[in-house]
Amino acid sequence: MSAPIDLPKVLTPDLEASLNTLATATLTHQLHQRGIRTTFLPGLKPLQPEQRMVGRARTLRYVALREDQQRTYQSGINAQKRLVESTEEGDVLVMEARGVAEAATIGDIFATRHFVLGGRGIVTDGALRDTPAIAAIGKPVYHFASHGAVLGRKHMPFSTDEPITCAGVFVVPGDVVVGDGEGVVIIPMDLVEEVVQDALIQEEKEDFALERVAAGEPTIGLFPLSKERTPDFEAWRDARKS
Amino acid sequence: MSAPIDLPKVLTPDLEASLNTLATATLTHQLHQRGIRTTFLPGLKPLQPEQRMVGRARTLRYVALREDQQRTYQSGINAQKRLVESTEEGDVLVMEARGVAEAATIGDIFATRHFVLGGRGIVTDGALRDTPAIAAIGKPVYHFASHGAVLGRKHMPFSTDEPITCAGVFVVPGDVVVGDGEGVVIIPMDLVEEVVQDALIQEEKEDFALERVAAGEPTIGLFPLSKERTPDFEAWRDARKS
Amino acid sequence: MSAPIDLPKVLTPDLEASLNTLATATLTHQLHQRGIRTTFLPGLKPLQPEQRMVGRARTLRYVALREDQQRTYQSGINAQKRLVESTEEGDVLVMEARGVAEAATIGDIFATRHFVLGGRGIVTDGALRDTPAIAAIGKPVYHFASHGAVLGRKHMPFSTDEPITCAGVFVVPGDVVVGDGEGVVIIPMDLVEEVVQDALIQEEKEDFALERVAAGEPTIGLFPLSKERTPDFEAWRDARKS
Amino acid sequence: MSAPIDLPKVLTPDLEASLNTLATATLTHQLHQRGIRTTFLPGLKPLQPEQRMVGRARTLRYVALREDQQRTYQSGINAQKRLVESTEEGDVLVMEARGVAEAATIGDIFATRHFVLGGRGIVTDGALRDTPAIAAIGKPVYHFASHGAVLGRKHMPFSTDEPITCAGVFVVPGDVVVGDGEGVVIIPMDLVEEVVQDALIQEEKEDFALERVAAGEPTIGLFPLSKERTPDFEAWRDARKS
Amino acid sequence: MSAPIDLPKVLTPDLEASLNTLATATLTHQLHQRGIRTTFLPGLKPLQPEQRMVGRARTLRYVALREDQQRTYQSGINAQKRLVESTEEGDVLVMEARGVAEAATIGDIFATRHFVLGGRGIVTDGALRDTPAIAAIGKPVYHFASHGAVLGRKHMPFSTDEPITCAGVFVVPGDVVVGDGEGVVIIPMDLVEEVVQDALIQEEKEDFALERVAAGEPTIGLFPLSKERTPDFEAWRDARKS
Amino acid sequence: MSAPIDLPKVLTPDLEASLNTLATATLTHQLHQRGIRTTFLPGLKPLQPEQRMVGRARTLRYVALREDQQRTYQSGINAQKRLVESTEEGDVLVMEARGVAEAATIGDIFATRHFVLGGRGIVTDGALRDTPAIAAIGKPVYHFASHGAVLGRKHMPFSTDEPITCAGVFVVPGDVVVGDGEGVVIIPMDLVEEVVQDALIQEEKEDFALERVAAGEPTIGLFPLSKERTPDFEAWRDARKS
Repeated sequence: MSAPIDLPKVLTPDLEASLNTLATATLTHQLHQRGIRTTFLPGLKPLQPEQRMVGRARTLRYVALREDQQRTYQSGINAQKRLVESTEEGDVLVMEARGVAEAATIGDIFATRHFVLGGRGIVTDGALRDTPAIAAIGKPVYHFASHGAVLGRKHMPFSTDEPITCAGVFVVPGDVVVGDGEGVVIIPMDLVEEVVQDALIQEEKEDFALERVAAGEPTIGLFPLSKERTPDFEAWRDARKS
Repeated sequence: MSAPIDLPKVLTPDLEASLNTLATATLTHQLHQRGIRTTFLPGLKPLQPEQRMVGRARTLRYVALREDQQRTYQSGINAQKRLVESTEEGDVLVMEARGVAEAATIGDIFATRHFVLGGRGIVTDGALRDTPAIAAIGKPVYHFASHGAVLGRKHMPFSTDEPITCAGVFVVPGDVVVGDGEGVVIIPMDLVEEVVQDALIQEEKEDFALERVAAGEPTIGLFPLSKERTPDFEAWRDARKS
Repeated sequence: MSAPIDLPKVLTPDLEASLNTLATATLTHQLHQRGIRTTFLPGLKPLQPEQRMVGRARTLRYVALREDQQRTYQSGINAQKRLVESTEEGDVLVMEARGVAEAATIGDIFATRHFVLGGRGIVTDGALRDTPAIAAIGKPVYHFASHGAVLGRKHMPFSTDEPITCAGVFVVPGDVVVGDGEGVVIIPMDLVEEVVQDALIQEEKEDFALERVAAGEPTIGLFPLSKERTPDFEAWRDARKS
Repeated sequence: MSAPIDLPKVLTPDLEASLNTLATATLTHQLHQRGIRTTFLPGLKPLQPEQRMVGRARTLRYVALREDQQRTYQSGINAQKRLVESTEEGDVLVMEARGVAEAATIGDIFATRHFVLGGRGIVTDGALRDTPAIAAIGKPVYHFASHGAVLGRKHMPFSTDEPITCAGVFVVPGDVVVGDGEGVVIIPMDLVEEVVQDALIQEEKEDFALERVAAGEPTIGLFPLSKERTPDFEAWRDARKS
Repeated sequence: MSAPIDLPKVLTPDLEASLNTLATATLTHQLHQRGIRTTFLPGLKPLQPEQRMVGRARTLRYVALREDQQRTYQSGINAQKRLVESTEEGDVLVMEARGVAEAATIGDIFATRHFVLGGRGIVTDGALRDTPAIAAIGKPVYHFASHGAVLGRKHMPFSTDEPITCAGVFVVPGDVVVGDGEGVVIIPMDLVEEVVQDALIQEEKEDFALERVAAGEPTIGLFPLSKERTPDFEAWRDARKS
Repeated sequence: MSAPIDLPKVLTPDLEASLNTLATATLTHQLHQRGIRTTFLPGLKPLQPEQRMVGRARTLRYVALREDQQRTYQSGINAQKRLVESTEEGDVLVMEARGVAEAATIGDIFATRHFVLGGRGIVTDGALRDTPAIAAIGKPVYHFASHGAVLGRKHMPFSTDEPITCAGVFVVPGDVVVGDGEGVVIIPMDLVEEVVQDALIQEEKEDFALERVAAGEPTIGLFPLSKERTPDFEAWRDARKS
């Protein structure tokens, strides 16, 4: 567990700084523009809606409990323990639990361990256990439900650092995970740079539009930005920069 | 877009003032008493549960996306833009999105435009985009879900100011929409006056009952109010007025 | 309604004090250890997530509305009134409403009466009416939905103090009901003593593990507690006590 | 188990003969005309869609399994056995299982016993076990799902011959249960006579309309029957009778 | 009602003959190839799975019932009657009922009228009433559920021959509707010719592949058809034609 | 693809012959008796309810579509092709598709290939494409839905012969899969022998009970079989054998 995990680290400090300013909605739009339609995870609630989460996907897959297999998958250093203990600075734990609300996927002790090791957030399309204690940690966590029971009821932790489907979205270990008050988006690791670049431009345009609309202008020509208004936008942008 | 919208405005300042004091539960009950059973929109979450919303229904209907129709319904001055830009003081935007959680119906720029133009609130049985930014506006918004994507994924904006079904409730443009921390109720425009009148009386009786119950009296005879306790109620009401 | 309700009162002041310190997750685990798997109520939202609820189950069952039976089950001193008015100090009202979100099971006046009489909390797998007013009472309430309508739409109050199924969990009148920010767990009345005793020990071990993990130790050996680390735990426990 | 069950028997041979000719849709309509809106059980599949079922409701309620209560409710002569063994000629077994698809409510042996004793049909809003064997009996059965497991997984049989909610419809023991290829309707026992009487008239009118429409006439004036066409109908009816 | 409906008729006898040989799966694939992803209606059951349905979409939209609007939308010559009575040879009736299973959208008399007038089929994402009688007509009908009640419970018929969303698919009046044992697909009217042309070629290739696979060849190279196997296919096709 | 698959073959001809006589309900019960509760797959429909299916589980897992990964997982000899082409005599194809109804997992050509290679059946908790053509093959297939589209809409085929969760049940490649008109049960490969042995005894007892109940005896003492009736059963069994 001491050897570094063999997964790409695509997040440079610059990219991370940029992602910390970009809305998940903007990132989702940029991916959609590239023909990648299913990247935002619907139906998950943030425990800390005012915080932002940026990190590298570390994946954990739960399968249905079968009692004759509990010894194999649940006891000892199981997949959950392996994954949490191998957390590196900057990791986000993403779990596949198939929308099951009737047993939890992680509790406060493993969540604490994740954050102590430098983890940046936890995402599950299943339930949390110890929700109040996990909320008290004060770090970004996204979940589908809460339940007082964990292993032994519905799930077994099965595999780590393999591709999963979480909340209907395909996640590859090493992908970039971003969360805000709206929810969570997965950015394929190969696309992060270009997506961030274009998202920054898009967000500037939306900031311009929002400022003008808040000041009383109609949306037409501002959103989406028309050719006619592009000079206005550029002047505004240059003024803001200086 | 400059001509006033041809929809009845049934809300006088007095009615509006009264509606600002009446719970959606009381209004729902009054409509139920008149045999109108399906007026409260179940399953919607308020972004500002402590605020009240009162206004005139302006309706927008989303239909399922079909890519060969995107040019017709989505580009240019589409139905969404037309409706938002024609918002008048006192309007509430009500959208039919058939409970689809996997693509949004409105984002922060159009929401801002709605409120700048004097809009009083936004109601969707689909998803919001830019939920944190919309919440930051600080005005009443009711929604079923949040999603990072908007047009081009599930919906096309289709028609404006025509009757719709939102969250299972029939809404006619011009109807009165009231929201509080419980949710949203639709009052048919022809019935507003009588409903408000009777709701004010009902709420007085409930206030009386609540005060007495809080003071330790049993509910029986107080709620519903019995003949025997009516004089007590009337004395209390008269005392309160003076 | 003045005669004391003929239901066991298994909660001594000591048990209650202990239960006020025990997480629903810990209690759910202890019941699971005894082979009782379905005791935590999934899908309910707390109105006061920061509060704790401990009390004796008083049950109320709603059945589907049938208009020819309304006189029998709904008018006069119906089951809802009977149950609420017979609330004793320490009771929790638990309602079976089969997950119906489109009509409420209780409003603010009956909720107030429950708390005035010493009730400790309200649990429904249906909807609340007057949710903002009930939230303003500031006492523990757990619900599935909110709706502006109550009787006469979907439900009739049917029976009191008989076993029910609430949110998929079997509840016997007299059972112990515990709630926290995670949700609600039902403890069969015969098992409260032993469950509390073992839960206190379990929670001490989890506190020890959490403290060490927060301080930077790996989870392995700490959770679950290994033989090797048991002396450490015991020393920590003894030190904490003194 | 030898004493006759103390439940009204409202079905005379004449009523039964009439009900065997009346569609569940016609009966549902007659009840709706009397203000009773929720009498048809949605979502149930008939094993024998071409057969008709008419009988008296005998009710059985399942509650959620709780392992500490299995001895009380499941072993020995439990509620299921009591009810099935007390079946009388003309009874229909109606079970409340709250839409649970993941464990069955009855298997082939008890189903066989029901029919041997003169039972007329089985209705469950849960699952059947031994579905192929039950289908092979060749008698009317309506169910929500099929599952290989029965007791000990999700349910305990709880009470017999008490009012229940099946598929969202309130059922009183002794009510009349009618089934056809469309599904099942519950007729309150007090209303059977008048409902049958009016349903026979309604069905005659619909037969007339259907015959004319099949012969090429427009629906207008025929369905619903107008004053102008009433003499035509009456002539047709009199001709058919003779 | 005697003037011909002003809707395009794009189905020539040749196209219709071709469509009668093409699987809905093949047509769905051809539309998907053109970037139109949502054209197959999921979740509907065929009453006559062995029959094929080909026709022109005539649309009817149901909205939520609101009792104060029943006179306007339900009585007299309502939208349902208008649409059914205006059926022309070759029409398929497609209804939007938003997946509501608890009230029907059409019964046997109007269904009969549809077929008498030359209608080719009925599609609803809501319920049928008189399902056994409609099945007895022996013509193609696709539905989501069955229910004994029709108007006055959940729906009002609202508009005719306007675009709708049925089972999550956008349908324009005049579009081509095709059904088989798998379900229903909507072909945008402008695309029918090219879709049919390419679908015929695709189906020939699939027939070739299926024949060879049935004869024991591996799927690779056959499905999808590789360059290497194209000459084989062409020889087979030419042989079949002659 | 010519090397035999490296998976245990636990099914001897004797076991297979026995399993062909055993109901899935009986097998589910035997597994439940051993503490293995979740082995029957709920919610799947048989295309051939009158047939029986017995075979070895070959597993295929679908994940959510992500367009940037289509080249990797979908084109060329993808997981679906690899698995189907490696089918051996006696295999059952079991697919994990997470209950997605809006895109299919297999069509008629691959289904045909499966059966040509000696496959015994197909099980999916997603949709079939070409359902009528697959039904025409006349072999056992169990599915959740039907849809005209296959790859490129919701799924990518991901992995083969690894453990999966199908319809909420954990399936290990090599496990025994049994299907009848009720549905499908998974028997852990290590337990097949003992489960079959005990299931044969159980089924004999149930046959005895059913015969007697059909002949008019009460269920009590017969099901479950009491000590008092055991001699009767043994006599019946011995008589039947000779």
